[in-house]
Amino acid sequence: MSGSDGAPLSPQVFVDRLREEGVRRYHDQHPFHQRMHAGTLTRAELQAWTLNRYYYQTRIPIKDAIIVSKSEDPAFRRAWIRRIVDHDGEGPETGGLALWLRLAAAVGLDRDEVASCRSVLPGVRFACDAYVTLCRESPLCVAVASSLTEMFAPDLMSKRIAAWEEHYPWVGAEALAYFRARVPRARRDGDEGLAFVVAQASSRALQEACVGALIRKTEILWHLVDCVQIATGGAGGAGPPAKAAPKAQP
Amino acid sequence: MSGSDGAPLSPQVFVDRLREEGVRRYHDQHPFHQRMHAGTLTRAELQAWTLNRYYYQTRIPIKDAIIVSKSEDPAFRRAWIRRIVDHDGEGPETGGLALWLRLAAAVGLDRDEVASCRSVLPGVRFACDAYVTLCRESPLCVAVASSLTEMFAPDLMSKRIAAWEEHYPWVGAEALAYFRARVPRARRDGDEGLAFVVAQASSRALQEACVGALIRKTEILWHLVDCVQIATGGAGGAGPPAKAAPKAQP
Repeated sequence: MSGSDGAPLSPQVFVDRLREEGVRRYHDQHPFHQRMHAGTLTRAELQAWTLNRYYYQTRIPIKDAIIVSKSEDPAFRRAWIRRIVDHDGEGPETGGLALWLRLAAAVGLDRDEVASCRSVLPGVRFACDAYVTLCRESPLCVAVASSLTEMFAPDLMSKRIAAWEEHYPWVGAEALAYFRARVPRARRDGDEGLAFVVAQASSRALQEACVGALIRKTEILWHLVDCVQIATGGAGGAGPPAKAAPKAQP
Repeated sequence: MSGSDGAPLSPQVFVDRLREEGVRRYHDQHPFHQRMHAGTLTRAELQAWTLNRYYYQTRIPIKDAIIVSKSEDPAFRRAWIRRIVDHDGEGPETGGLALWLRLAAAVGLDRDEVASCRSVLPGVRFACDAYVTLCRESPLCVAVASSLTEMFAPDLMSKRIAAWEEHYPWVGAEALAYFRARVPRARRDGDEGLAFVVAQASSRALQEACVGALIRKTEILWHLVDCVQIATGGAGGAGPPAKAAPKAQP
């Protein structure tokens, strides 16, 4: 079905394939996230997620700088650098990392403890580091493809904001600034990333590598939440719902 | 004299050592640069230098993005990203690379030919690629140390501007915008880089690695000019003046 020797998929078929594989495996369907949105997470569970997910956040500017270093095109680098600035900020306390630490304080965590990343679960660390490694070891186009989970982020963020405001009002609406900022940015990043991948993945083999990288990325995100769920006493390892479908190897 | 097992050098001794090794080997002393400043380069020689040096320029944002990707500190990344923006610009035609292409046109080269890098001398390519590799394979502090030739750049740039205005007026003062922009930026970059290296190189071994990286960088810059000199009919390979002094191995 997905032989990488054939002719390149048409742009539309390629986009459909990326979207289908991504949507099916995206971590919005993880039971832990579904409980988050249903309002049944305990404060300790919210804290564990916030603390561990922070490590993922810290990897973003690092993997994005790696992506910048892989491009020969000033225009691409100019556009992609915005992603680093989104997380690091234009000055102290202004970027996504600082906003996440405010969220951490709002859910009752010690800011410095979270910032130190010393309590991050080993499995979360492995998964997030695997994301950086994937970007480092892949051609530019494939590294960019691994960012395409951004295509599915705006919906998840919008749901999350509504759910937290309704179910966890003790966190405070102020503290959700990171999620709010991500909605338009993830849309912009997802659109730009998709356009780049479609334009650059000129062979079937490269297209398959892009699909593989996106799948690997969904596994990374899924595993992160899995680890948090297991550490907080839940079951884990079930994987995304449609397990029967064939899984491409990145 | 430079055993890397001993106690760390004091900050002042370390800075003096970096400065001494750097100044002694900096490419301002290369015969080709001395002829450039004396006004005796032909138009073809100026063109060859401008075309080949452009390849070095294109490596800067790439090695700087690698450096950004090695840091865990948002404040460091914020500061270092400015270097990428300096070369890529805030928009099309605004950065150092665009200014260099204007210089190339002003010395009579075809802008697209220069931008393509297809006529770059092999030795120049090897040297410039070695700079990217050095940054990729070194710890952050050592990669930053390789940028410390910036400490010596403002003087060279100021001399170059005066020399080109006097001896090569046909190039036009407008076209020297890149050199002019570099004077304050190189000073800022050199100061910031030096402060970082002094603060971070906490062991004698790391200090020696930093000195070694700076020396390697001076060799890269020197070799670039050497290749241009040889290709335009001059002698090459003489190396910096004080050859008798011991040469550290990075």
